[in-house]
Amino acid sequence: MLNPADDRLIAALPEGVVRPLEPRHLDEPRGYFAGQGGLLAAPRNVEEVAAVVRACAEARVAILPRGGGTGLVAGSVMPEGPAPLVLSLERMTAIRDVWADEDALVAEAGATLQQVQEAAAAAGRQFPLSLASQGTAQIGGVLAANAGGTGVLRWGNARALCLGIEAVMPDGKILRDLKRLRKDNTGYSLRDLMIGAEGTLGIITAATLKLAPRPAAVATAMLEVPDPAAALQLLSLAQAMMAGCVTTFELISGQGLAFVAETLPEIRQPLPGAAWSVLLELSLPQGIDPDTAVEDLLGRAMEEGLVTDGAIAQSGQQAAEFWNLREHLPEANRRIGAISSHDISLPLSEIPRFIADAGAMIAGMGDMRINCFGHLGDGNLHYNVFPGAGRSRADYADLRFRLPEAVYQMVVERGGSFSAEHGVGRLKVADLERWGDPVKLSAMRAIKAALDPHGIMNPGAVLGLG
Amino acid sequence: MLNPADDRLIAALPEGVVRPLEPRHLDEPRGYFAGQGGLLAAPRNVEEVAAVVRACAEARVAILPRGGGTGLVAGSVMPEGPAPLVLSLERMTAIRDVWADEDALVAEAGATLQQVQEAAAAAGRQFPLSLASQGTAQIGGVLAANAGGTGVLRWGNARALCLGIEAVMPDGKILRDLKRLRKDNTGYSLRDLMIGAEGTLGIITAATLKLAPRPAAVATAMLEVPDPAAALQLLSLAQAMMAGCVTTFELISGQGLAFVAETLPEIRQPLPGAAWSVLLELSLPQGIDPDTAVEDLLGRAMEEGLVTDGAIAQSGQQAAEFWNLREHLPEANRRIGAISSHDISLPLSEIPRFIADAGAMIAGMGDMRINCFGHLGDGNLHYNVFPGAGRSRADYADLRFRLPEAVYQMVVERGGSFSAEHGVGRLKVADLERWGDPVKLSAMRAIKAALDPHGIMNPGAVLGLG
Repeated sequence: MLNPADDRLIAALPEGVVRPLEPRHLDEPRGYFAGQGGLLAAPRNVEEVAAVVRACAEARVAILPRGGGTGLVAGSVMPEGPAPLVLSLERMTAIRDVWADEDALVAEAGATLQQVQEAAAAAGRQFPLSLASQGTAQIGGVLAANAGGTGVLRWGNARALCLGIEAVMPDGKILRDLKRLRKDNTGYSLRDLMIGAEGTLGIITAATLKLAPRPAAVATAMLEVPDPAAALQLLSLAQAMMAGCVTTFELISGQGLAFVAETLPEIRQPLPGAAWSVLLELSLPQGIDPDTAVEDLLGRAMEEGLVTDGAIAQSGQQAAEFWNLREHLPEANRRIGAISSHDISLPLSEIPRFIADAGAMIAGMGDMRINCFGHLGDGNLHYNVFPGAGRSRADYADLRFRLPEAVYQMVVERGGSFSAEHGVGRLKVADLERWGDPVKLSAMRAIKAALDPHGIMNPGAVLGLG
Repeated sequence: MLNPADDRLIAALPEGVVRPLEPRHLDEPRGYFAGQGGLLAAPRNVEEVAAVVRACAEARVAILPRGGGTGLVAGSVMPEGPAPLVLSLERMTAIRDVWADEDALVAEAGATLQQVQEAAAAAGRQFPLSLASQGTAQIGGVLAANAGGTGVLRWGNARALCLGIEAVMPDGKILRDLKRLRKDNTGYSLRDLMIGAEGTLGIITAATLKLAPRPAAVATAMLEVPDPAAALQLLSLAQAMMAGCVTTFELISGQGLAFVAETLPEIRQPLPGAAWSVLLELSLPQGIDPDTAVEDLLGRAMEEGLVTDGAIAQSGQQAAEFWNLREHLPEANRRIGAISSHDISLPLSEIPRFIADAGAMIAGMGDMRINCFGHLGDGNLHYNVFPGAGRSRADYADLRFRLPEAVYQMVVERGGSFSAEHGVGRLKVADLERWGDPVKLSAMRAIKAALDPHGIMNPGAVLGLG
């Protein structure tokens, strides 16, 4: 590959797309990887994106698609190899159209998740995908990573919320498939293939997104549960009573509450000291009183020993407080400083045993603290391991690689995934090699070679450089 | 390609998989296409499927995957070219596992949709995909076609209900990805690519399917509406009041009711003579009375002039009667005999104008009757055109090709699809060529060539023989 600063490449780019590269284009939130300097192109429309891709294809220069830079697996920083052209969609931020009656809108890839949520709200609807990073994360990255978040239980992940895409393929051709249809069985679903491909098969430049009605009423509660097994029984009970109206079911560990108390003491905790608790939200139709609904559920759950204590939000403000606690768990983790973080998923029924077995295994490896929390309703745990109290990360340098290895082995043996919602990026290339199905990997390589024969699209991400 | 009766091929197949080909393996429901005689292989497990595929790959013999044979686009009959090996999964019918608490089960591809529904019901859950052909349609075909049906509005199509697949790739290797995870971002979604690929990229041999809780209460109603625009406003109102608990929203035309009255007079009609009506179903949580819920909705809708008459099911039996009427519309159509049938989808807001414009256009083409009905909530209409009263299909021979051409043109111009839920098969290959995005088609061809370099998997379907 050529150096992207090659004069012929620059001459071939559309007028005005080259911009100064800033430090924010080269970092990633965890600071494990640093990008290289080089050329930044920020096109204003899909035709300019296509022209940039054609020029790079011609010059055999690698393209690094860059959204908000909030991804956690280094999918959009390229630390090695010839410097890439960094392609930022930061100037393509329009909400092109909103069809409220159809529950659909078209957003450009550079629009932030929050912009999309606001456009949906302005139309009397909701875009039911939420992430802690939504003010910065861009729709292009949300789709490239098939992001999850806290609404997956009811609404699915990013893939399930996308009706159509506009994209530039690795040869610079424009795929125009922004249909706003709920059903369209006309050939292979390129949309579903490109979503989750982390920019290795082309660049999503705009998407038709599915909106949802705003619920007539919402009930929010924090519930203390005896253990994760009880939490899962509570989920089953809630789904059966509520006909699938459970929109959030988040597990919170006592360790997580302790980290918040230590690092963010200003955050109010409704159930301080609870060893395990659940943030539950129901989105309800008209004709049902949310307080009664959640009290009925709570009553049944307490009778069955599934809940030992609980706080029901009495106002929108109180519900926001519960959410605020949940959303600050990652910040508290950052302040404590993890030895190793694991975004894993498991079959629901495997979770209690996994938590017990992994806890025992880690206790055998040294003095560590575990904050196990996350999207229990989706079987998705953020299983993060921290130094023992009063100790520092440096004391655990020898575990930096052994620990994830041991955790992922235990996860995979139980039919789980070593990357539930964060993706593969560059951080987990070796994990995919090791734990991925070899037939799937070989089909992925064949597809990559077929669509991107020169290997210019985000090389090194997902499939590695090999 | 060789003739499949080649002795070397037969010798290479696993013991006991060859069975006599029966007429039922060679037909398709509409009778437009007839398959050729040849060899039938009915393997008993995935290893035998793999061995059959390897033998065919070696001998360069085409494979025609065959499920229940209920598909409407001739995806599983091959009328032209060298005779294929017909690969039937009729002996792989096991429900391998059910995890009720996880809302998941694993079914082999030869299990019928109804078997899966029954297994879900036995576990106290539902599999929320329903088709008129569910007693015969097999899960492998349901996934290969990405089938839709009457629950898509709430639960999505087949793709949305599949968590993982086991499949045999065109080189005979086995993809083992039967995970039962709600989140798994570990590389390209081969699952979503193979679902809807109509057997052209490999053979799905088993799938992990997503179950849903059974609703605490169900409300079913038939509502007369002034016109399709009012029906769409009613949908919006119902979604807003019911927080997404609307599980069915089917449009029925007066012409459809007339066809049922004429050909199936024994079927009771709650609103005979209604020019337009809607079959509505709400699936509700505990704590809400279904009668009150639907009466409240009906009250509001009548006030706003969206509904002029209605019948609310007073019992499960009455609800079943409403459904029975809806499900017999296709049978009545068959008895009348269509000139041309169109499985189309449109952006919701385009539907009223499309129905008016297409009706005017067809009136200009001759004396014909239109039965426009279907899954309005998904924007999916079955737009079927029949001879004028007292006339026969033969009178319209010149319209056999002109009519779909004109309808699809009008659909595509409005951002719609010429195949909403039936797929492409062999019937719509030319339509895909004509109306499909050329960049999408070229990416599809590249993927097909990469995964199936010898072109043995269902050749001629979706992408044609070219």
